[in-house]
Amino acid sequence: MKKIVTFLSDFGSSGGYVSQMKAVVLSLCDACLVDVSHDIAPQNVRECAFVLRSVVPFFPVGSVHVCVVDPGVGTDRRGILVASKKHVFVGPDNGLLIPAARLFGDFKVFLIENEEFMVRPVSDTFHGRDVFASVAGHVVNGVSFERFGRRVSDFVDMDFGPSDLIEGGVVGEVLFGDRFGNVVTNISSSMFFERFSFGENCTLRIGKKRRKVVCARSFGHVSSGELLVYVGSSDFVEVGVNRGSAFEVLGVSVGDVVSLVG
Amino acid sequence: MKKIVTFLSDFGSSGGYVSQMKAVVLSLCDACLVDVSHDIAPQNVRECAFVLRSVVPFFPVGSVHVCVVDPGVGTDRRGILVASKKHVFVGPDNGLLIPAARLFGDFKVFLIENEEFMVRPVSDTFHGRDVFASVAGHVVNGVSFERFGRRVSDFVDMDFGPSDLIEGGVVGEVLFGDRFGNVVTNISSSMFFERFSFGENCTLRIGKKRRKVVCARSFGHVSSGELLVYVGSSDFVEVGVNRGSAFEVLGVSVGDVVSLVG
Amino acid sequence: MKKIVTFLSDFGSSGGYVSQMKAVVLSLCDACLVDVSHDIAPQNVRECAFVLRSVVPFFPVGSVHVCVVDPGVGTDRRGILVASKKHVFVGPDNGLLIPAARLFGDFKVFLIENEEFMVRPVSDTFHGRDVFASVAGHVVNGVSFERFGRRVSDFVDMDFGPSDLIEGGVVGEVLFGDRFGNVVTNISSSMFFERFSFGENCTLRIGKKRRKVVCARSFGHVSSGELLVYVGSSDFVEVGVNRGSAFEVLGVSVGDVVSLVG
Repeated sequence: MKKIVTFLSDFGSSGGYVSQMKAVVLSLCDACLVDVSHDIAPQNVRECAFVLRSVVPFFPVGSVHVCVVDPGVGTDRRGILVASKKHVFVGPDNGLLIPAARLFGDFKVFLIENEEFMVRPVSDTFHGRDVFASVAGHVVNGVSFERFGRRVSDFVDMDFGPSDLIEGGVVGEVLFGDRFGNVVTNISSSMFFERFSFGENCTLRIGKKRRKVVCARSFGHVSSGELLVYVGSSDFVEVGVNRGSAFEVLGVSVGDVVSLVG
Repeated sequence: MKKIVTFLSDFGSSGGYVSQMKAVVLSLCDACLVDVSHDIAPQNVRECAFVLRSVVPFFPVGSVHVCVVDPGVGTDRRGILVASKKHVFVGPDNGLLIPAARLFGDFKVFLIENEEFMVRPVSDTFHGRDVFASVAGHVVNGVSFERFGRRVSDFVDMDFGPSDLIEGGVVGEVLFGDRFGNVVTNISSSMFFERFSFGENCTLRIGKKRRKVVCARSFGHVSSGELLVYVGSSDFVEVGVNRGSAFEVLGVSVGDVVSLVG
Repeated sequence: MKKIVTFLSDFGSSGGYVSQMKAVVLSLCDACLVDVSHDIAPQNVRECAFVLRSVVPFFPVGSVHVCVVDPGVGTDRRGILVASKKHVFVGPDNGLLIPAARLFGDFKVFLIENEEFMVRPVSDTFHGRDVFASVAGHVVNGVSFERFGRRVSDFVDMDFGPSDLIEGGVVGEVLFGDRFGNVVTNISSSMFFERFSFGENCTLRIGKKRRKVVCARSFGHVSSGELLVYVGSSDFVEVGVNRGSAFEVLGVSVGDVVSLVG
């Protein structure tokens, strides 16, 4: 079966930028290409890291993931290849690859320094194409990781902010709003289930708002327009409104503190 | 030649949800994956059914179509596999698969009940990934339809609302507005051609609006800003404005009655 | 390795139109399909020509590119196949294929006239599917170009408008705004570097606005909210705002005159 190369970025769908990355990969190898998303909010490294972490477990072992949310392109931020036990990640050294890599236990980080494996001349604005896509193609072709650059341990790390159990509930942060207006938090399902079960009511505080909400299995369990707290398909707690936008209804901002108390 | 699996949903392009479905399929089989659209208006089952019906005839016989506009996910709505004479459809039992399947004559409907062919544990919110994509992968691998679940005849049906010939014209309903602002109706081209020919003028009534319009072969036949009635590429009548949005100009709502009289 | 067929249009992501083109290609041949973009501004032939020209050099030699921004569909505008030395282009005869083809030196233009290689009946509104995608599939299958129609030299040409060196600077036009709000101009990097180096300041005039800006290697070299002039990944000069939209900040319109003077 063919190797899979995935693409995740904040490039949007215009301009043909994503296709340039694919063109570089296809010039090097015969891989199966899959878009993860290119609609990460511009320069939102944390949202990108979250989406990457949520999709990777479903891909076949051995897939290569090219991820480019890269506010530091053209400066001296480094490019890295992260070799986890099951997947390979290629992108900027700004933390976005780390939460996904960590899912599979120990991992190794290599700098991307060897220009032999880049599209030359390397542009100042598009390392996604000239560096990361090119390295991914060479990874598919079996180039050993050490040839791209030396192994390092001082990579930029990332987490999804603090979340914790509190008296009778849980507390965390708003990570981002999805297309449906659902509010994605950094509270894991396992933390949530230590305090709550589906069908219970609780008090939601989010930013300055406070609401009574039901913990429901899915949208179909509440009426149209009703708020609910549920576990999203990425295994984190989300806040939604059936046929509406919780993000708008609650006037939420990314980074707001969220708490649920029974 | 490789089997084709297509994907049609209201998931949008953010969040990576579509890629999770593709990852599940690619973990099971080596198929050629094609996106039909993920920009169906959220939870608009009828628009999704229309788009599916309009694209399927162009795909090679034997393609498998995964369709997920699924307001009932997580409730007791059933999942089904629909085996038509030329194509296989997988999705929720809410009617969206039926108009496409009916294009090819008789079809059989099977419940999706056998957890052996699902991603486990099955989430409450994402059957597109855990149930429908997984079943599609197994269909490509040749699993016989009966193994997914028992055959049923009480599936949810769907049509595109009433449309008919009237004195000197035709009447129907607005199905949806497309990206260009064209108004897609449920009046078939064959019904239209019983009353009209290209080049004729007629009176369009749509919602509370009434306008003189020309029946034209295409946009290039009318001036900029001019209204026209034409047959869309899906073989249904559409109303458009050259270089403008008929949906906005006419203040149309989905479900509005449309009539054309000579 | 499989032949590559790319798709570039203003169809957007709804309606499933792009998938119908892909279905037609896959019914004819086993190609690797890549979307370039479907978010060209509706009927903006010049933007489409620019994007095509910027992506094609990265694709493997022998790729076939289907491009459909086609305001004249259904009129007597002609369909053409353009055979350059490295790539084949298929689309309407409105100029959009020419700047890309010209990158590779001499090229030949053939009319698409032979209905044998079309999906019949050919619709009046969707030649992207019925004519251009179908022809692309036959090209992949090795049909010789002469069989589609006769060779012509009176094709519609296109350039990106005037740009030139002036006293102490350069002058050109605004081509379009990209998703990030960057303003893409028709001033080439080679022209720019005859007058400027990175790190220099200059005076930008764009439309009626006049601003002091820095010529920077990339966004990371200026502060948040600061204007910069840089060379985009397509090798043309762009104007941007770090973490902002230059298009909005400067109140730019497509076609505005842009000048940079040191």
